[in-house]
Amino acid sequence: MTGPDIPESHPRYESLLTRHRIEEGVDLGITSRQGLIAQGRGEAFDYLLGEETLPSADEAERVAAASLLRADHAVLSVNGNVAALAPGELVELAEATGADLEVNLFNRTEARMERIADHLREHGAEAVKGLDADGRIPGLDHERAKVDADGIGDADVVLVPLEDGDRAEALAEMGKTELVVDLNPLSRSAQSATVPIIDNLIRAVPNMTAHARELADADDEELDAIIERFDAETALAAAERAIREPDDADDS
Amino acid sequence: MTGPDIPESHPRYESLLTRHRIEEGVDLGITSRQGLIAQGRGEAFDYLLGEETLPSADEAERVAAASLLRADHAVLSVNGNVAALAPGELVELAEATGADLEVNLFNRTEARMERIADHLREHGAEAVKGLDADGRIPGLDHERAKVDADGIGDADVVLVPLEDGDRAEALAEMGKTELVVDLNPLSRSAQSATVPIIDNLIRAVPNMTAHARELADADDEELDAIIERFDAETALAAAERAIREPDDADDS
Repeated sequence: MTGPDIPESHPRYESLLTRHRIEEGVDLGITSRQGLIAQGRGEAFDYLLGEETLPSADEAERVAAASLLRADHAVLSVNGNVAALAPGELVELAEATGADLEVNLFNRTEARMERIADHLREHGAEAVKGLDADGRIPGLDHERAKVDADGIGDADVVLVPLEDGDRAEALAEMGKTELVVDLNPLSRSAQSATVPIIDNLIRAVPNMTAHARELADADDEELDAIIERFDAETALAAAERAIREPDDADDS
Repeated sequence: MTGPDIPESHPRYESLLTRHRIEEGVDLGITSRQGLIAQGRGEAFDYLLGEETLPSADEAERVAAASLLRADHAVLSVNGNVAALAPGELVELAEATGADLEVNLFNRTEARMERIADHLREHGAEAVKGLDADGRIPGLDHERAKVDADGIGDADVVLVPLEDGDRAEALAEMGKTELVVDLNPLSRSAQSATVPIIDNLIRAVPNMTAHARELADADDEELDAIIERFDAETALAAAERAIREPDDADDS
């Protein structure tokens, strides 16, 4: 856990930590201009959500944890903002679920790929995929389509936090179980997800890890039951209601 | 009007133009990291507002135009994002209302002040204030408090687009008529304004100019009547309703 010298009891702890990590991401050359604008969009939606994990999001995070545990091959996709915001937290989630980590950028340059992989290794990652780029996602143009054949290319379950809409839709069309973290319930990424998680990444990833640890001894039947019960439409509607009508929000 | 090669008929014209200008602002060193994040927050609120000027915002823009025309001394405050997003449009508004332009930064450095003043001059500004910094706004710490004594220091009416909450509140406490452009109706800036304008700067400034031109021959009595009729609480409530409950939004 990297962080500035902010006590966890500070009322703006999460917000200050986020700001610090994004600034650091820019200094390290892993957060792009588009990433900073995207961060601002997320802040606004989180503000309207009340900056807390909704009960419906907590449920989606539990379902996502169950899906990662139940996968034949799970991969956590990491872009620049994700690497800046929650590097250590993602490494912990990968460890708790047996998932691979793969760097996957909307604006791909080899230098940024390397810097992000290094950043993840500095936060404890042992193996980082994405640099081979010997696989392709159908339906996307050349640079945007690149993945590792033995990573996202081979995965049956993929966590794509803060992903752009085209990529999220293309992955969904490949038939993969797609777990999306996005603060905008109306975004194409959230709408195309098998499991849309409408929550701040900074809260969502540690909570998925906590659920995964709690479910570590669950058998396949129990995991399948958790996954089966989930309804994406209901989760999206609960988040939209929380944004639009905060007074009678999220009674799921 | 600077702009990329985008036809005005393009369905995403405004969004693409905004993006282009913000990118250019970064290249020119006038848009900061914080400015990029703030831009993203604005995009999210504009998305929820439907990316259009509400009737209540159009009314506020007319009231703002009347206030600028009626002022003894009106000043348009310009920060990094404002300069990047609407430099030519602000110069036109200043001309149409007889207002001064003053550069005023949250993170003040002499280099950025100069670059922003240059950018405004390249878009037709003849005089740009803010560089003397021989006045102070009471209640703010040293760098944040600096204004020109014969600019914002002397003004009775100030337009502060995209201003931070502390500064907006401190200006309001000085008894100035404060016109605020902000896409978040719940922000402290919007809440402390005499005239809160809940609209995208890119739409709001040209619309204020159009209203000012239309009101150019109005007498003081007519301008006062327009100003008197305005109710800030009602305008804020209409914008919040548009965000929260789009189906029965803004019937003002």
